[in-house]
Amino acid sequence: MEVELKELLNDLQSLKKSISDPSHLALIDKMHLHAENIATLEKSGTTRRSKVKDMSAEVVDSNPYSRLMALQRMGIVKNYERIREFSVAIVGIGGVGSVAAEMLTRCGIGRLLLYDYDKVELANMNRLFFRPEQVGMTKTDAAVQTLSEINPDVMLESYTLNITTVQGFDTFMSSLTNKSFQPTMSGSGVDLVLSCVDNYEARMVVNQACNELNQTWMESGVSEDAVSGHIQLLIPGETACFACVPPLVVASGIDERTLKREGVCAASLPTTMGVVAGLLVQNTLKYLLKFGQVSRYLGYNALKDYFPTMEMKPNPQCSNAACLERQKEYILAKPTRDAAAKAKADMEALSAAENPVHADNEWNISVVDDELDGSDTRNSGVLPEGIVHELPVADEYLKPPNTEVVGPADDLEELRRQLEALNAD
Amino acid sequence: MEVELKELLNDLQSLKKSISDPSHLALIDKMHLHAENIATLEKSGTTRRSKVKDMSAEVVDSNPYSRLMALQRMGIVKNYERIREFSVAIVGIGGVGSVAAEMLTRCGIGRLLLYDYDKVELANMNRLFFRPEQVGMTKTDAAVQTLSEINPDVMLESYTLNITTVQGFDTFMSSLTNKSFQPTMSGSGVDLVLSCVDNYEARMVVNQACNELNQTWMESGVSEDAVSGHIQLLIPGETACFACVPPLVVASGIDERTLKREGVCAASLPTTMGVVAGLLVQNTLKYLLKFGQVSRYLGYNALKDYFPTMEMKPNPQCSNAACLERQKEYILAKPTRDAAAKAKADMEALSAAENPVHADNEWNISVVDDELDGSDTRNSGVLPEGIVHELPVADEYLKPPNTEVVGPADDLEELRRQLEALNAD
Repeated sequence: MEVELKELLNDLQSLKKSISDPSHLALIDKMHLHAENIATLEKSGTTRRSKVKDMSAEVVDSNPYSRLMALQRMGIVKNYERIREFSVAIVGIGGVGSVAAEMLTRCGIGRLLLYDYDKVELANMNRLFFRPEQVGMTKTDAAVQTLSEINPDVMLESYTLNITTVQGFDTFMSSLTNKSFQPTMSGSGVDLVLSCVDNYEARMVVNQACNELNQTWMESGVSEDAVSGHIQLLIPGETACFACVPPLVVASGIDERTLKREGVCAASLPTTMGVVAGLLVQNTLKYLLKFGQVSRYLGYNALKDYFPTMEMKPNPQCSNAACLERQKEYILAKPTRDAAAKAKADMEALSAAENPVHADNEWNISVVDDELDGSDTRNSGVLPEGIVHELPVADEYLKPPNTEVVGPADDLEELRRQLEALNAD
Repeated sequence: MEVELKELLNDLQSLKKSISDPSHLALIDKMHLHAENIATLEKSGTTRRSKVKDMSAEVVDSNPYSRLMALQRMGIVKNYERIREFSVAIVGIGGVGSVAAEMLTRCGIGRLLLYDYDKVELANMNRLFFRPEQVGMTKTDAAVQTLSEINPDVMLESYTLNITTVQGFDTFMSSLTNKSFQPTMSGSGVDLVLSCVDNYEARMVVNQACNELNQTWMESGVSEDAVSGHIQLLIPGETACFACVPPLVVASGIDERTLKREGVCAASLPTTMGVVAGLLVQNTLKYLLKFGQVSRYLGYNALKDYFPTMEMKPNPQCSNAACLERQKEYILAKPTRDAAAKAKADMEALSAAENPVHADNEWNISVVDDELDGSDTRNSGVLPEGIVHELPVADEYLKPPNTEVVGPADDLEELRRQLEALNAD
């Protein structure tokens, strides 16, 4: 549209030069004004919001980060602004990946790397994110268009390629190891890889890349009947990799494409995919910003609203050579890990002994002894009118059972056994 | 922009009439063409996809409903197309309500009623749905703009009003009882009300309206620290209403607005709100299309990925008069409910005895007796190469404990007691 407008303005200019009739000139000036108004309206529709240099916690309507910085005040996250330093790669920009990308973009993530080779179709409209007017665009282009409008602060890199081809895999690997965004970071060039693909072949490729690079990643998936899904954290050497406990279709070596039938497609729902994307990015935020418990595996059964969790240890007979290498390294690094954990615990114990937990006490909260006068202090008149306690008082506090800490020396024999098992392969 | 373009075209027309120089006329014709191209480009950006008369299950890229209709083939939903008959009202088009509206729109819901009085701000950009270029629009207008582009098949009604005012409540009630969309439906004019508001005052108003109209609704909420949320199903008379077990702030009669402090805002995350919206609309789909288990209460603790569930019975001492009326009706209708449940069970038993469960057996599945030759039939060579069973065979099947069915006659005394308790109020 920009080109058409420019041509129109040029034509008006040349017409104006060759005309002398004052009434005609007035009409041309009027048209010029209309054309400029159209240009302004068109522009206001594309440059949506300006970049923000620093994240501010100021509570004003014009601050796109106030509700996120409030996580610090609420005591959930220590330093929210660190999110700008992180790079996350999302493989597969479909029903889960596109929503995950939008969530991270709205959270103000530093850098997003997007990988897909598919195009937007009307058949995708039953899931969130893509819009009908984007039909025909590549998913990567459409995603960059929408995400850059939502938050221009996020650095977007898009790769329109298939990671399961030889050339695609090479580009995938080199993009993951590029450190120009954070030259000082250790490990690869990204902080996390999110797998949001819809087939096992691509998952095995992400698994291979992450095992080779010793890169932590998260897996996600939604079932063909659209009513269940899962997310999974994979830390090379520490947790099971995708090849450690492969799905039957992978283990049997069947080409999964031969299983598809003409005229049959998988079902999908914006609800299930939105929930899985939400759980995936929540786990990502917890992992990057260090709050809450990062889930190792979390399932979602929509029919029963059931959310199973589990842990999967690496398989010493894993078929993936890079996985076995990572397992060896993990076992060898155990003494170092134990020493670091002990030093941290000692430091925390020391600091807790020296400083009160809440030095400022903004809300003037003080602890009252339950046994002060033998009566129930909960009924001392602090409840608002009309409210009474429904439950009995002074439930006895249940002491946790004695737990025995296993020292690093105790399982040295076990460690040696594991290492020997791995070397035997 | 349309107005400006029209004026420009008019001006060109009148200029053309009063000019005779052929080179000038050629230039004007050229400008006319440019202006028309701009009009076409502008239009192609607004009419995104045409309406679809019937939902088709055909697997082609151009079918926006193929992945939803596939739910029938997968055996999840019996008649997906029924979704076009349903009306859902969403109160509050914020971080949860807007995403719920988008999910229902993409699912092809028949009719959506949207209520909000707020405007879009940059401070809302950390949640899904609204875009920076919509800042300053009312949330209802912005939602209608986006939703009608996504799916023109959905009938959208928007109400820019505050339901907690006297006039707002009147309009709210009359909109809920308007049956012009489905004149033959019983009850009110909507199938479900979704409460997606951020304060208790509005929740109490939705509760009042739904108790008066005997309207089933679902409640949703996200905590101020952004890391937990819940959804809840409320069936007047059958489950607890919002006043049966009120939150402390409601029960104590404190004006919650006095609790807010200058310069402090609630935290929010697109992840938590996306998950809550997803769970809410999933429960909505299960309720409307009759599949899976509809959850009565489902919590979400993001820090621990913990999802508590519970049931809440109505409170015979509830402060809401309409709730007490609905409780009485529910108790009185118990014999009718029991008879209907018995008739249904009898019918199902009869039909199961007459017909095989799977008459077509498309996949040629047959049942083999485990005890056929006393050996383990699971190791009979059907596994692909390289795969072995990890678990021992023939785990003994655990018989469910004997359960005693309580007949309608057994608890007649209890029923009478409950009714008397209600009448005593």
